[in-house]
Order: sequence, then structure tokens, then C-alpha cells
Amino acid sequence: MDFTEETASDAVVASFANTEDPRLRAVLGSLTRHLHDFVREVRPSHDEWAKAVDFLTEVGQTCDETRQEFILLSDVLGVSMLVETINGQHGGTENTVLGPFHAVESPQRDAGENIDLLGEGEPCVVTGRVVSTDGEPLRGASVDIWQCTSEGFYDVQQPDVQPLGNGRGLFRSDDDGRFWFRTVVPSHYPIPTDGPVGALLETARRHPYRPAHIHLLAEAAGHEPVTTHLFVADSPYIDSDAVFAVKQSLVTEFVQVDDEDQAKAYGVQAPFRLVDVEISLETEGRLA
Amino acid sequence: MDFTEETASDAVVASFANTEDPRLRAVLGSLTRHLHDFVREVRPSHDEWAKAVDFLTEVGQTCDETRQEFILLSDVLGVSMLVETINGQHGGTENTVLGPFHAVESPQRDAGENIDLLGEGEPCVVTGRVVSTDGEPLRGASVDIWQCTSEGFYDVQQPDVQPLGNGRGLFRSDDDGRFWFRTVVPSHYPIPTDGPVGALLETARRHPYRPAHIHLLAEAAGHEPVTTHLFVADSPYIDSDAVFAVKQSLVTEFVQVDDEDQAKAYGVQAPFRLVDVEISLETEGRLA
Repeated sequence: MDFTEETASDAVVASFANTEDPRLRAVLGSLTRHLHDFVREVRPSHDEWAKAVDFLTEVGQTCDETRQEFILLSDVLGVSMLVETINGQHGGTENTVLGPFHAVESPQRDAGENIDLLGEGEPCVVTGRVVSTDGEPLRGASVDIWQCTSEGFYDVQQPDVQPLGNGRGLFRSDDDGRFWFRTVVPSHYPIPTDGPVGALLETARRHPYRPAHIHLLAEAAGHEPVTTHLFVADSPYIDSDAVFAVKQSLVTEFVQVDDEDQAKAYGVQAPFRLVDVEISLETEGRLA
Repeated sequence: MDFTEETASDAVVASFANTEDPRLRAVLGSLTRHLHDFVREVRPSHDEWAKAVDFLTEVGQTCDETRQEFILLSDVLGVSMLVETINGQHGGTENTVLGPFHAVESPQRDAGENIDLLGEGEPCVVTGRVVSTDGEPLRGASVDIWQCTSEGFYDVQQPDVQPLGNGRGLFRSDDDGRFWFRTVVPSHYPIPTDGPVGALLETARRHPYRPAHIHLLAEAAGHEPVTTHLFVADSPYIDSDAVFAVKQSLVTEFVQVDDEDQAKAYGVQAPFRLVDVEISLETEGRLA
């Protein structure tokens, strides 16, 4: 039978019939059908398809040890967040994307320690509690924190300006599941715009910004870990994250506190911002 | 509204709403919906999605001035041939993929000239006629020919072995629309297998071979050009071209001729193979 618009997908799917791994065989079949559906729908000219090939090639060639432009493309097409959503916890604190900046191990820090090593920006105190979905406090949970500065840069992006570990800390919850740390309010920031994905956003008149957030990865024995963000409620772009990672339940009030005594109790200067969060973890295995 | 499996596609499509070019806006919207459908169907784990990103990155990084691994990926997924089919002539000789080896200009050659400059392999005579779809001969049509050797290599792949222009010729049809040339029977050959696309084929237990063929690009004033192949009917892999480019109407008998007088008339040694083709071109503009 000839290769036509009607027979194309069956022919290509059949070519993958001898793939041993049944999962890979199913993925290749599904990819073929959806990719062909896309092509049949948009009916690209030869020139348009050549441009698509050139774009993908440039995305691949923009990648190096510290830059992953295909993840960026996946991010701005909402695919990373869709994969995150599909693999999400159900019941506990909602998850969101890991992002590319969990690149180095966070230094272990004591309760209350300041993860801001630069002393620039608006002081901020984060207090929190790790609990199970039935409300029981989880002691000894690990809470991994990473964030950018008040200027919008992660430590790994500014090796000449920031000491490695700035904006990062690995904390343990106490007997009541509590943890706390001092920091500065992070800034919104753009995803990298000097590659083909940036050019795509510009052509589409989309801004490249992510609203301000603190990353948090919480793990406790016998529970499902959660990778999430605390989004700063009054940040610019809170309604139009370039990578679609905002969930309403993760938008957190960073409350301004002017009280000198409260500032003194936390060891910061007034005014400062105070955040309180509860991280709730699903019991392990309940999702399977 | 939160980003969920249900709202994801609308949210991403909406983010492209300000794209000025309506065609690009439509393509990005369609891409988003089909890509999300694929992801929702296969429900990749984080690890699986990371593997997909790694694969695409490797495909991009395998590309250089003489290697286009993304076209190869498009080829083995049947997408290149689907794009070709969508943009095909209707009514005249059927088209098929251009392929990556039309890389250099073919030397102009006289009727009957031998495009085989090595003198190795089975002698072959190709005679043909270029006509319009209503059967009128087209004089002065250009017929661009390129093919691999009897060993399965194009000139550009073996700069140390083959003179540039071996297996290539640009011919003009005569007053009766006729053209002819001498050559050798081309061999089947594998697409490049030393990159990620080759690894994919191996994992899928797919062979990388294309059946033997001669490329032909015919153009005549007032007519739609056609890019096509003459496939050698008794070639291995004629029923399983790795890039899905075979159409039944393009499978051509390369008839063995033992007759010494006929050989002499064409200026070749017996036995040789004789091919006769008619290339029919659609009137210009009738497809629009």
C-alpha cells in the first residue's frame, strides 16, 4: 500500500512493531500519531518544515553544560508543568516544577540561620511546619530551600558576585514538624532570552518573566516528597508566569511587619516580611 | 484558574494570542494542543521526559555542516514524506523526498553522456520522456539526476574516492521531450547510523536501509516541477524503505538486456540494464 496522508501513521507505527520494550513501543506509536496529526492539521510547506528543523537544531546547539534550551522550550510550551501535574501528589501540598537551578547541593543549616550571605534586599523570615495529610507533625523532615537574590539571580549564575550556597539551605524539622530561616525577598526574573526560545517568545510577544518565588523540596520518611514553590503574592507576573508554574494554593502572602520587637525576636531589622507555610505530605505508596 | 491537565492547553494557546503573524499563531496553537495530547496520553514520568529532552539535545548536537540529524529523525518518523505528500503534485508523476544529497549542482551533460565516472558496477541505460499531463511532449525541460554508486555512496560522501559530479547530470529534453543517459545501477544503502537516530532504529529493531533509487528533478516552463525517484524494482528493502519514500508508481523495472547489438547502439557492454520512464508534469497554477 502506498504512503498517503491516510496510511502514513499506520505505516510508521507498524515499523516500530518489533521494539522489545512495550513502553517504548507505545510511546513511539503515540508520538507518531500525534506528530502526524499536527502535520496534517497545519499542512506545512517545505520551507516551513525546513524552518522548524532549523529551529530545533538551534535549540539543540544552544545546549551546553550549564544551559538546557530544550528544557526551556518544554517550559514555555507548558509541557514541563504538564509532566509535573501528571506526576503530582494528590492530597498534600501541590507540586510545581523543579526548574534548572537545583544544580548544587544545599548546605545544611541550623534552624533560623540566614541563607542570604550578601545582606542586600528586603529582610524576610520564613516559618513553616511539615505535616502529614492527616495533620500529624513530621519531625526530622528535610526541607531543601533555594532562591534567587533580590536582584533576580541564583548563586550559580553569578559565581563572581555570590558565594556558592547563597540563597540555599537544607533544614530539618523539629519535634513539632517546625522549621524556620531568614533570607531576603526574592525577585521576579527572566528565563534566558539570548537563545532560540527567547527569540520565539519575542516573536510571540510573550514576556520571559517568572514571578518571584522560593523553591522548596520537602521529604519525610514514609511520605511522598514534594517539590514546590512559595510564590510571592504581590510579585509582578504572578498571573502570567512564563513557564505556567503558578498554582493558586502556592501563592503566599509575604506580610510586611514594622514591629521592632517582632523583628528583634527573629534577629532581623524592621520592616521585614514574614511568611508562614504548612507543607503537607501524602503517605508513601498511597498514589500507586 | 489553575494549570491542570484540563486547562493546560488553553492556557498555553492563550499565551500565544499576541503573535502578530496569524500563520505562526495558528501553528503554535496547533503544536501546543497536539504536543499536550501526546503528553496526556503517554503520561511520561519525570525520568522519561528527561530522557526525551536528552535525546532531542543529542539530535541537535549531532548536526553540523554536512550532517542534519533532525531531518533524519523527521525521515524515520515518516514526517518528511508526509510533508512531501501534502505538498505533492496531483495528476502528474508522483513526487517523493528530495533527500540530503542534492547538495551540489549537477554538471550539465549532453544526451547519452555517462554520469558514471568510475567504471565500476552494472552498466545501465536510462531513456525517458517529459510530457505534460495531457500527453504533449515538453521540449527543453531540465532533468536533474543524482544517484549513489554500485557501492551505495554519493560523491559528496567519498571525496577521496569519487570525483565531484560522479553520479550527477543535468540534461535537457529534445524536441520530442526525450532525454537519455548512461550510468551504473545504484545500490541500496543505509542512512547514517552512528548518531541518536541510528540508536533509535537499533532499539526499535528497524533496519536503516533505503532501496536502490535514482533521484530525478524535472522542470519545464509553464509546468509544476516534480522531485521524485526511480526505484529499482528488484532492490532489497523495496518494501521497507527506512524513510517511507517508496510509491508503487515509482517502482521501475531495470530490465536486463543481453543483446550485443542493443548494447552497441547505446555504447555500453552487454549485459546491461535498460530503464524507460515517462515523467508527466502538471500545468502551472492548476494546484492553487
